[in-house]
Amino acid sequence: MEPITIKDVAKICGVGVSTVSRAINNHPDINQETKDRIIQVIKENHYVPNNSARNLKRSEARTIAVLIKGISNPFFARMIQILEEEIQKKKYSFVLHRVDEKEDEVDVAVELIKEKRLKGIIFLGGFFTHSREKLQQLTVPYVLSTVGILNTGEEKEPLDYSSVSVDDFEESYKMVDYLCSLGHKDILILASCEDDESIGALRLAGYQKALKDHHIPFRQDHCIYMDESIQTYSMENGYACMKRALVEKLSFTAVYAVSDSTAIGACRALIEAGRRIPQDVSVAGFDGLDIARFYHPSLTTIRQPVEKMAYATIRLLFNEIKKGSGHQQLVFPAELVIGESTRACGPEGASIAPRAI
Amino acid sequence: MEPITIKDVAKICGVGVSTVSRAINNHPDINQETKDRIIQVIKENHYVPNNSARNLKRSEARTIAVLIKGISNPFFARMIQILEEEIQKKKYSFVLHRVDEKEDEVDVAVELIKEKRLKGIIFLGGFFTHSREKLQQLTVPYVLSTVGILNTGEEKEPLDYSSVSVDDFEESYKMVDYLCSLGHKDILILASCEDDESIGALRLAGYQKALKDHHIPFRQDHCIYMDESIQTYSMENGYACMKRALVEKLSFTAVYAVSDSTAIGACRALIEAGRRIPQDVSVAGFDGLDIARFYHPSLTTIRQPVEKMAYATIRLLFNEIKKGSGHQQLVFPAELVIGESTRACGPEGASIAPRAI
Repeated sequence: MEPITIKDVAKICGVGVSTVSRAINNHPDINQETKDRIIQVIKENHYVPNNSARNLKRSEARTIAVLIKGISNPFFARMIQILEEEIQKKKYSFVLHRVDEKEDEVDVAVELIKEKRLKGIIFLGGFFTHSREKLQQLTVPYVLSTVGILNTGEEKEPLDYSSVSVDDFEESYKMVDYLCSLGHKDILILASCEDDESIGALRLAGYQKALKDHHIPFRQDHCIYMDESIQTYSMENGYACMKRALVEKLSFTAVYAVSDSTAIGACRALIEAGRRIPQDVSVAGFDGLDIARFYHPSLTTIRQPVEKMAYATIRLLFNEIKKGSGHQQLVFPAELVIGESTRACGPEGASIAPRAI
Repeated sequence: MEPITIKDVAKICGVGVSTVSRAINNHPDINQETKDRIIQVIKENHYVPNNSARNLKRSEARTIAVLIKGISNPFFARMIQILEEEIQKKKYSFVLHRVDEKEDEVDVAVELIKEKRLKGIIFLGGFFTHSREKLQQLTVPYVLSTVGILNTGEEKEPLDYSSVSVDDFEESYKMVDYLCSLGHKDILILASCEDDESIGALRLAGYQKALKDHHIPFRQDHCIYMDESIQTYSMENGYACMKRALVEKLSFTAVYAVSDSTAIGACRALIEAGRRIPQDVSVAGFDGLDIARFYHPSLTTIRQPVEKMAYATIRLLFNEIKKGSGHQQLVFPAELVIGESTRACGPEGASIAPRAI
């Protein structure tokens, strides 16, 4: 059955199309009785007004874009899921836009604001080192969510943006401090790419600081950078990193991977090389994905409060959109979750000689 | 620096704004010399025309919506990633819209077509039992991707839609046939929800058919349905299902979970109960996620060619959009990947007595 049109409604009511239109749009210039009859007919026939201009205005005015760097990380999958649900609940449209590693997210956003006439933007992942001038090009409310933000030390001025994050430096410190407290001295870090200036760099800095505070010298060869030809933070990359470290016969008693996926890839490589976790090597991750809990051995990790962070992102954004609220920077505490994958370093010394592989 | 406006360009050129507009829009009614000068000034000053109406037309006309049921499955995360990349490459916008389990996806799509004036739609996941009349409400090209489609046996008429899928029934059959061929007779299935009419139902039917062909009676108590209060196909649900089966002291030598995530949750519950995989229990999954490969023991699974399926989805959709091509139904073969998590059933018989838990 063809859907009923405004012309059909007009015909049934014995009035002109413009009269039906006036009834729909609550125009004052229409007889109440006629209006009631038209509304009645509309209801009875399940007519859906299809005024392009009106729909256009409504839909165009109600779009939120999520710009994301590093879309493949399962951590973001959960974030996106919640953001999408919440945006949909508020009757806004959700546009997802991936930003390439080398692209400038602010330039991309400025272009999207123009094209889509967005109501708001959420930046997910990546790193922000843009100047105040640059950020002023963003003419709609936006929130930086789980974006690495460099602490420039110029914090006296009020910040120009809202953000939601954990303190990647502090949380990373917390994990490495824990490993050191277990007696580990030879701790490999599976860091992000070498030229990373994002959260990966902050997590590496936290590792270095914790070593320093435990009087353990930082060794460049203990810092395994991800393979840039493989997706960053992936299991595959963790596997490749660990294989490399094993081939190089590095001596270590613990491995700290800057994401849970990387850690699980590393576990696979260790197990294939005959190393037991945690008896021979302790392994720790970061993020607190579900897999950390269900993996065997369960993974010691830093659990980011991903749900809370996603809801807070939405709250800050809509406060700015609807109430014109000022900027807020929320830093959520993450939790050190001690799993089965780490244990105290054996009495035979910090270093267990690598087995033949 | 404020971006340059059309007024600034007009001022610099000493002409009116409408003349600049005519130059930009390649209007015939303008002196060539004037036009050249205006274009020159535009270039020198990096003026970006910001004609709302034109931008509107361009952006509005170039949106593809992806409607998804079951957004949390990591299998879809990879699909979405590729779809988003490809749609972006083609300079279209990507709108992601989650459809609730109980919502009618065609109704949602019809509403979106109107509001967003979409160029195309991709349905991801879920199940399609809509009538021909219903589908005719979809006035733009669309592709059903990894959607369970009931084989009604009325295949003689040409189908009204394009689709990309694996044969969930056949692939599920393949897995259970393999387990039977290893000598397993007591095979639990961790099926989807009891009222599932989607791919979960097809996979369950494949299990039943394989048992039948191996002359193994189907036992209702060997069919563990997912907990509807927990996300379907999740690790958590697999864990809960397996816990239930263990509490009920069911006797089994193999577990077939209809998704890899469910299988990994099940493994965790088995390990916590002191069962070794595969020595005590063989475990198999479905999907072929990365985690199946990196998990220890690596998981026997059905690997869906997710990349190929995503690219094919885009190809079919854009063939219809750009070339008006007819409908095509592509069924991709999936691969039985034999991992470390399954092995032949011991000589002591098909059934290993359940241990105390």
